[in-house]
Amino acid sequence: MTDGGLSRRRLLGVSGTAAVAVAGAGTAYAVSRGDDAGAAGAPSPTAAPALALDAAVPFRGEHQAGIVTPAQDRLHFVALDVVTTDREQLRALLEQWTRAAERMTAGAEAAPGGLVGGGPNRAPEDTGEAYGLPASGLTITIGYGPSLFDDRFGLAPRRPAALRELPAFTGDQLDPRRTGGDLCIQACANDPQVAVHAVRNLVRLGFGVVAVRWSQLGFGRTSSTSTAQATPRNMFGFKDGTNNLKAEEPEGLAQHVWVGPDDETGGGAWMAGGSYLVARRIRMHVEVWDRTSLQEQEDVIGRDKKEGAPLGQTKEFDAPDFARKSPDGTPAIPMNAHVRLAHESHLRGIRLLRRGYNFTDGSDGVGHLDAGLFFLAYMRDPGRQFVPMQRALAKADGLNEYIEHNGSAVFACPPGLADGEHWGQALFA
Amino acid sequence: MTDGGLSRRRLLGVSGTAAVAVAGAGTAYAVSRGDDAGAAGAPSPTAAPALALDAAVPFRGEHQAGIVTPAQDRLHFVALDVVTTDREQLRALLEQWTRAAERMTAGAEAAPGGLVGGGPNRAPEDTGEAYGLPASGLTITIGYGPSLFDDRFGLAPRRPAALRELPAFTGDQLDPRRTGGDLCIQACANDPQVAVHAVRNLVRLGFGVVAVRWSQLGFGRTSSTSTAQATPRNMFGFKDGTNNLKAEEPEGLAQHVWVGPDDETGGGAWMAGGSYLVARRIRMHVEVWDRTSLQEQEDVIGRDKKEGAPLGQTKEFDAPDFARKSPDGTPAIPMNAHVRLAHESHLRGIRLLRRGYNFTDGSDGVGHLDAGLFFLAYMRDPGRQFVPMQRALAKADGLNEYIEHNGSAVFACPPGLADGEHWGQALFA
Repeated sequence: MTDGGLSRRRLLGVSGTAAVAVAGAGTAYAVSRGDDAGAAGAPSPTAAPALALDAAVPFRGEHQAGIVTPAQDRLHFVALDVVTTDREQLRALLEQWTRAAERMTAGAEAAPGGLVGGGPNRAPEDTGEAYGLPASGLTITIGYGPSLFDDRFGLAPRRPAALRELPAFTGDQLDPRRTGGDLCIQACANDPQVAVHAVRNLVRLGFGVVAVRWSQLGFGRTSSTSTAQATPRNMFGFKDGTNNLKAEEPEGLAQHVWVGPDDETGGGAWMAGGSYLVARRIRMHVEVWDRTSLQEQEDVIGRDKKEGAPLGQTKEFDAPDFARKSPDGTPAIPMNAHVRLAHESHLRGIRLLRRGYNFTDGSDGVGHLDAGLFFLAYMRDPGRQFVPMQRALAKADGLNEYIEHNGSAVFACPPGLADGEHWGQALFA
Repeated sequence: MTDGGLSRRRLLGVSGTAAVAVAGAGTAYAVSRGDDAGAAGAPSPTAAPALALDAAVPFRGEHQAGIVTPAQDRLHFVALDVVTTDREQLRALLEQWTRAAERMTAGAEAAPGGLVGGGPNRAPEDTGEAYGLPASGLTITIGYGPSLFDDRFGLAPRRPAALRELPAFTGDQLDPRRTGGDLCIQACANDPQVAVHAVRNLVRLGFGVVAVRWSQLGFGRTSSTSTAQATPRNMFGFKDGTNNLKAEEPEGLAQHVWVGPDDETGGGAWMAGGSYLVARRIRMHVEVWDRTSLQEQEDVIGRDKKEGAPLGQTKEFDAPDFARKSPDGTPAIPMNAHVRLAHESHLRGIRLLRRGYNFTDGSDGVGHLDAGLFFLAYMRDPGRQFVPMQRALAKADGLNEYIEHNGSAVFACPPGLADGEHWGQALFA
């Protein structure tokens, strides 16, 4: 790995550590860090996991990876502020990040030289904690916040019309330390050490140009983004995201997720093929929830707890029947149930691609776990999708008694990169 | 799962979800939550992971599981305070915890009835977020802090002599909100959702009797506790725990980890076969570290970064040669290198069983990641092992420039349970 690029040996997956290509997400291929990691005779620390989880996800393509990529199980998300006012420094960092991200998603160190190639008198080019670990399905997705388009970098004329700060919603309890950001990086992987390593090395490369504003780890995806994935459970113990958009619905994605070629004109035209990301940190008061009855829980969600079927139906994927009555004449799915209010039929057809994660950030100092859902959703236009949906939920959702939105941000995630292209190129064109 | 116990179907591992017994740690067997989780026709969310990681670890035995059990990859650790002064409530909770822990480590819900067995008007017996997930190697290990043996519960005469608060060490920057605790629960698993679920359900059962004092998640083990595991890397990018005690060294474990039958007399005799746990939250200033030269990093640790060999040697498991000189006449391993000061040859033969985890708890509000090592170590007598070791390190370790101990606790972890026995039985005898 001192040849200044990805070694062919690596890309052919014949290194010493477990690295076998298994088709997972399209044309996934597998590589691993550390050509000689197995040379000491010690077993690979990654010998046990299933190999599909080790594989690499292609970095380049029509869209950024990490959006419709089948959701990996671990997340490290970071929002950053730009601390320089030098436009060229920012542009150069985005280019440098592209190279590093492409290398890391392929299972290589952040920069040529890796741990030791720079020699004893230089800081290593890679921090090393993922050395020897496989690519682990790592995706790195970048986004630009509305504040990036102020007057610091001359980007105001490039701001897409759809990229606006979210309005305040009823019940919001936003903590400024968990809100906003000039840039975001979403790193998802099947090994948390790989996701954390990716963010850390990008942050390191950005020293003096960007600083971490806030970050969030997630440990269990809460939505399936592919029909090949079962629906996971959130911290309320319910299946979450049953009705999510899936990678296998290209028409739905074109309609609800990807920015169309005519959506933005003028300065924002570079967003075609991109998507908008809304991030919300939703604290869930699990201790209160855990003391409520099963009936109350199911009424609040509008699904049964075990199977995840809409109330009044029997199977998870049965369509909810909002007109159905219980034997006592009341609606089978209560009027303020989450599934009713969040359903497209009550939102004039609005849908989102949810890609959130469960979190538990220790405890809150008064005896409770600081647990919840880090809601991430991709969409074509937040003002026409997330905003009306959240207004409807904030007003009446029975869940509001048990949750609290305490972090919020919105980002424009540009389209994918063609060969030789780098982040920021279209933005600064 | 409404029959009030573990179903035979479950124990035979023939449920709908992935559940195949694979020998991993001794007599591991595999079960999974949710007999009919696969009935909806959806693929199991856990179909992908290697099956060895899904298996169950036996709960009962001579020693508690989670000490020499090959270290799982994920941790949820919680320190609790007892909030009642009623001795019987505490005793009853320990008994209830035993039943719940045994069930959950076998892959079952926290209590019979699970998600729905209690009927619509009761809170579910299990919070549900691990429903359908396999046992995932879950271990639940309990410990009692020195403060439990004050005058509240009549336990003062039962305090083992070796269980004392740790002294202050040079450089300590302890945060009271991350320090101490009447009780601890260490939950380790190969799936973080399973570890978090276990802690949450035990905390829920303890409502009114105990409250969370602090908790810590860890995402990557930093020490191998079995010769079958490769040495993982810490957040400084170095292999950590190469020289750790291993499960395959019964004489070393008897000498350094397990409390001997004659170690404690009188009130503390119940600790024979148990072990003492020292927990230290060690923040690592990764941003500073990442800007230092490779030479400085290797000199501070005393090993080379890539291979992990002691300086002056070539392979990870080569014995360090502390007398060896570099060509320039200086010691190959500097006098203040971590491996020199922490080595048994410089500590009159002191060794510990390290079982720590990497953590990244978001960012610190001033642009840095709050990352580090959650140090967990098991030993026979903290006053003769951890205390002299940490005194030697606190005084001279080159690492001190880059780390900060900001949390600390010590616990007496009782021996394992025989059939029919429960936690607290020996303590309250």
